[in-house]
Parts: sequence; C-alpha cells; structure tokens
Amino acid sequence: MSKHDEWRIRASAMARKSDNPIRQLVEGLKLEPHPGKPMIALSIGDPTIFGNLKPPSEVLDALIESVSSQRYNGYAPSAGHEEARAAVANYSSHSDLQIKPKDVILCSGCSSALDICVAVIADPGKNILIPSPGFPLYKTLIEGLGIEARYYKLQEKFDWEIDLKDLERNIDESTAAIIVNNPSNPCGSVYSKEHLISILEIAKKYHLPIIADEIYEHLVFEGEKFIPMASLSDEVPILSCSGLTKRFLIPGWRMGWVIIHDKNEIFDKQIRGGLQKLTQRTIGSSTLIQGALPHILSKTPEKFYTDTISVIQRNAQLVYKNLSQIEGLKPIMPRGAMYMMVRIDLDKFPSFNNGLDFVTKLVSEESCFCLPGECFNAPGYVRLTLSPPGEMLQEACTRIAAFCKQHCVL
Amino acid sequence: MSKHDEWRIRASAMARKSDNPIRQLVEGLKLEPHPGKPMIALSIGDPTIFGNLKPPSEVLDALIESVSSQRYNGYAPSAGHEEARAAVANYSSHSDLQIKPKDVILCSGCSSALDICVAVIADPGKNILIPSPGFPLYKTLIEGLGIEARYYKLQEKFDWEIDLKDLERNIDESTAAIIVNNPSNPCGSVYSKEHLISILEIAKKYHLPIIADEIYEHLVFEGEKFIPMASLSDEVPILSCSGLTKRFLIPGWRMGWVIIHDKNEIFDKQIRGGLQKLTQRTIGSSTLIQGALPHILSKTPEKFYTDTISVIQRNAQLVYKNLSQIEGLKPIMPRGAMYMMVRIDLDKFPSFNNGLDFVTKLVSEESCFCLPGECFNAPGYVRLTLSPPGEMLQEACTRIAAFCKQHCVL
Repeated sequence: MSKHDEWRIRASAMARKSDNPIRQLVEGLKLEPHPGKPMIALSIGDPTIFGNLKPPSEVLDALIESVSSQRYNGYAPSAGHEEARAAVANYSSHSDLQIKPKDVILCSGCSSALDICVAVIADPGKNILIPSPGFPLYKTLIEGLGIEARYYKLQEKFDWEIDLKDLERNIDESTAAIIVNNPSNPCGSVYSKEHLISILEIAKKYHLPIIADEIYEHLVFEGEKFIPMASLSDEVPILSCSGLTKRFLIPGWRMGWVIIHDKNEIFDKQIRGGLQKLTQRTIGSSTLIQGALPHILSKTPEKFYTDTISVIQRNAQLVYKNLSQIEGLKPIMPRGAMYMMVRIDLDKFPSFNNGLDFVTKLVSEESCFCLPGECFNAPGYVRLTLSPPGEMLQEACTRIAAFCKQHCVL
Repeated sequence: MSKHDEWRIRASAMARKSDNPIRQLVEGLKLEPHPGKPMIALSIGDPTIFGNLKPPSEVLDALIESVSSQRYNGYAPSAGHEEARAAVANYSSHSDLQIKPKDVILCSGCSSALDICVAVIADPGKNILIPSPGFPLYKTLIEGLGIEARYYKLQEKFDWEIDLKDLERNIDESTAAIIVNNPSNPCGSVYSKEHLISILEIAKKYHLPIIADEIYEHLVFEGEKFIPMASLSDEVPILSCSGLTKRFLIPGWRMGWVIIHDKNEIFDKQIRGGLQKLTQRTIGSSTLIQGALPHILSKTPEKFYTDTISVIQRNAQLVYKNLSQIEGLKPIMPRGAMYMMVRIDLDKFPSFNNGLDFVTKLVSEESCFCLPGECFNAPGYVRLTLSPPGEMLQEACTRIAAFCKQHCVL
C-alpha cells in the first residue's frame, strides 16, 4: 500500500470514449447566424420542438390517469410491469410475429434499449457492424464500451439499401452482431421484404445476431410498408428496439423497449438473462409511463398516426421539389422516418473546402442550420429534418436556393 | 476472415458480472410460506407497496400540471432541463453548501446516478471501497464494469460508524474512490459531523474522491441531523447522489441526480465532461418528471416530511421494543432511513445452519420474510423494512417471537 500523492483523477475509458459525434462536430463549428435573419434549425431530430406536431389527447389522458390512480408510484420489476410488457407484446405482434410479455424489456427510452443490447452482446475487442450513413449513437454506445464500431455501406443509388458485399467483407471472427436500422435515420429508407431477407441470409450464414433499431417503425410514407425484421426469420436471433418516442411524439418521456426474438432459444442460454441483469443496474423506466402504456398503445386513434405521416410526407415533397431545382444539390427522397439526406456537389462550390464549410457558411449567411453528413459518417451530405411547419421549410428552401446560387459555379 | 460455424452467443462480461446479490440469494432460497398464515414481506425496500405511505397531493398535482402543459414532450439536454437542475441546486443548497445548476445532472433514478458515478471514476482493474454491511447495488454496478468492489467494515457497536483503520487498510494504489452511504441502507445509521470529517480526512490524505450516496437524506429520526458530506470539505471532490425516490415516496418515477462538488476544480479536468458523455448514452431522465421538479421540491409541505418520518420512527420503536425481548435476537435501533438490522445469535439456534436457514424457516413456519444479511455482505443479520403499517409489524414481531421461542435453546 502506498499513498496517493496528489489529486489526479482521470475519467474512465468508458466515459472518455462515449463520444457523441454530433456534439463533437457541432461544438467545433463556428456557428454565427446572420443577425438579420431568424434562425431556422433543420438540424433538430426532436419533432415536438416546432409546436406543429403534438401527441394525441389520448396519450396525455392515459398519463394523467396513470398518475391519478396512484398505482404507479412504487418500483416495478426492472424489466417493467407485466401489463405494460403485455401491452407492448400485443402492439408489436401480428400474424407473422407472435410476441410474449416475457420477451419485452421496457427501458428508459430507445437509447437505453440500444445501450443494453450493445452491452449484452459484445465484449471489448469485439466488433459490431453499423450502417454508414447511420445514427451516431451507435458509435457512441459501442466505442464507449471498448468495442469496435465497424461501418458497412448503404448505397444512395439503390434507395440506401445495404451493400451486402461490403457487409459480408466486414465480418470477421470478432464480429458480435449487426445493427440494422429500418426505417433509417438519417436516410429515410424503408427496406423491402426481399432486402431484409438478404440481410438475414448473411446473418444466418455467419451465425450473427441482429440488433434491429426500428424506432421509426410505422413512420413510413403512403404506399410504403414497414416490415419488422423479426417477422422474416425463424433462425436468426434478433433484438429489436423501439419505443414511444417518434410515433407518439413524446421523445422526452423516455419510454423504449427491447423485444427478444429467439425462436430457437439461442439467446436463452445467456443473452436473455444478461439483459435482465443489465436492467437491474438502473431499475428500468418510469412506472408512470408504464402505467399509461396499455392505453397509449390501444387507444391512440389511427387518424393521429396518418396525420403525422401526412405532415412529414408533404414536407418531404415540398423540400424535395425545391431542392431538386438547385444546381449543386441532390436531395434523396425518403420513404419514411423524418429526415432527408441531400448530397452536395462540392465541385460546384469551389469556395467551400468541405461539407462542414458549406454548413457553417449557410448559417452565417442565411441563418439556416442543417446537420453535416460528417455526423452520420457521410461527408458530402447534409441531413434536414422534415418535421417543422411547411412555411418554415419553404423559407429554408428559399434561403438555401439563394445561398447556392450565390456560391455555385456553373 | 473466417466463417462463424454455429450459433454460440455469449453474454458479455459486463452482463454476466452485473450480479444482483439480493436476486441471486433470494432466488436460491426455498421460500414456501405457511399456507395458513398470510405472508408478511419485511424484505421489500419499496415504501409505497403497503399502501400506508403515499406521496403528497402537491407532488401528483405538479406532475399533472407538467403533463397538461405540453411543455415537456420533447427531448431535454441529456443532463436535464436548466430549470429542473436549478430546482435541485436550490433544494440541495444551504448556508454551508452552494450548488449551481451546472453542478446537477438529472438521472433516471438514483441507481442511474450511482451507475454513472461508478462508470466515470474507475477503469477495470481499479477498486472502489464500499461499506459492509452495505447496499448490494454498489457491488452490482462496480463488478459489472470489471472493477473490484472492496469492502470496508461498519461497526455495529459504534452506531455503524466506519472502521477507519479498516477503511485505510483497504486503500491501495488502485483505489479509485470511496462510496459512503449516509443515512445507511441497511443499517439506518446517521453519521455525526465528527465522523464525516474523519472520513474526509482519509479521503484527503490519499487524494481519493468520494461518491456520497445520500438518497436517504433528511429521512432521519427526531433529534438526529443529516449533514451532507459535501458541506464539510473544501478539498475533497465529491459526487453526491440523491433523488425523489425515498423522501417523496415515488421510487417508480425514476428521478435521481448527481451533484458535482468540486471547489478546487479537480473534477473539472475530466470527470465533469465524462459524466456529461455518459448521460448522452441514454439521454437522461423523463422530461415529464423534470417539468414537475421545481414544484415538487418547493411546494411539498414540511408536514408531509415529518409525518413520514414519524411513521417510520414509531415503527422502529415498536419493532425494537418487541424484538429486544426475544432471546437470541439483537435489534440495532436505527437513527434514520427505513430499515432495522437485527443480529441473530446463531449459537442459540442450533437447529439452523446459518442465517439463510433462519430466514427460510421463518417463512415456512410463520410466513414472515426478512432479507438475510448475506444480501448486504452481513451474514448473521437480517434486515427488516420499517415502512409497513404498525399492525402488520406488530403481527410480524409476534410471529418472530413465537418462532424464536420454538427454536431457541436457552
């Protein structure tokens, strides 16, 4: 035993490596909006922030009932109350996919759901395959635990489908799982049954479990169809993650879940118990929201869902139409979720060194902020959120058009 | 690259090692209540479960207001909304302890608060010192991360004060922090100013930060005084953890917090930023509860607090008086929190192999369940919760007396 001589307290590797690329990048940018123009933030993934999209009254009523009942003040089991888990099982089941309450683990938001899935499936030194472009939290969660985040490519020209050869190339002895995000943030892609089956074939060939991030489930445009990954495989064990956040427009409430799909009891040996143990570290999600879950999931009227989608889809069409006419930009029409990716032809903008430069100058000249593709491992793109009011998006498009006209070399 | 040949999916070391001693032990016991006697569970640390202790109407009203306002549907910053953090800062400040909103990190319950404190402060291979007897979650959180949980002794005969020599003996080059739990679960001890200063002296001597688990703050019996550890030191950096759980009788709501006490900016170099990064993994606590926090913390009437304490203290006196008269048992009167430790003189009960055996047979013969001391690294003790209605506790004492009389060899 020897004495510690001075105050030198380092943060753990986990804390240091849990880097959020968005925060890192955005904090590094010198964002100074044009003083004469009100800021339009097309960067924000929170659909509630603009005030045009609100949860339905049924959701608020269900929560007030939960509070008033006084039945949900105490601790729940760490994976959640049985009736709340049953409500999620019922909500997520259909003819091709039967889910039992015991297969549902309630979490404090979908981020926590993803966190325990990553934490249970891999040890430091292993790798997990993630999409590029992709949601930056995957990298934060994975690298924070000392696991390698290894990117596989999505292909813009094929509706952002996974480059299956690239996916397969990235698999090695240390690969522990594949994260598949469908519908996708930031791409807005919605995968076909055939494509999902192709992904599952690879998972099966290499005996790799899938973490299916389906938080944008059902948020698909008219004519599109969301197919839960787990409904297509009897063999590949899948942990699917979702929650109330996006579809019910209540991200702050923090209610998400993991569903264990494991027809052949492959996860039963260790993963199911491991997830249970991880939930015991923090004792799960707020019981108040759990108490409201059965009503939220059963009483929300269909019209609310379709109305939300209509708003997003109309906005997507508006932005697509506007940006398509701008020299140097190539918007890619999404099929679902709440975002649009726009490719910047940097050759046509010689005054910008890179996409970050484009984004920064768009703020300083037009007070319009889009997230740089670098946040999603996709340099050369920007991501626009489609949830603001139409007029705001129209104004943003007008400003972007003026900005590009100013800087584009034809 | 080589092919994975079969489905063999192991849980990570983190998942496997995040063991909850209570669950492990209790699941291993053959608990079969006596069919003719209704079960009395004195094992449960949830004060709401018996129906006699309820949160005040001000708390419920504050939450309903938060829901109805529709201001708290969206994401908050991962450490929490500014006004909610300010409310906690104000609530936790007093003349000797000034806290700023930036020093407060809101978490999904006090368990999550402890989780990020442990995760930020130590890497695998390090050790963190924890009390024995002590709250089992410390071990779960610490060992799950590959850190060593190293016990220091509390001394029953000195009101459960820390054995300072033992504490010091346990410190070595790899020690990263000391967890101090005051008031204590399971012991119900409330440390004096002098004792807290002695602990801080050791922390200062070895330059070790303290994680102060103060979730039972203010829950101290008449005549006792809770002193926040951080109010007594200008030098030792302290992360204190608390929340709404116990004092406001709403454990299920999951609202806890970390307060960073760091007058000399020792944590500022890495720990503050590290905590921030860890909160970004799961995006913090429910915004609905955050929205209600300012009102909950400012509008709850003093009478509610004193009423709760009266109930617990009266129960403590009742149980103490009853169990003191039982040959073979030695109850230790608590000064706060919600539990009582009772030592079993196993020499007087030759029919029991150990404390687990005592607990198991007490269930099978008298349908009365107390948590075995083994859950708290304290074999030879049992822990009783003091939150049930008085009549229930009286009945439990009567049954325990009959049980002990039956088995005690005088």
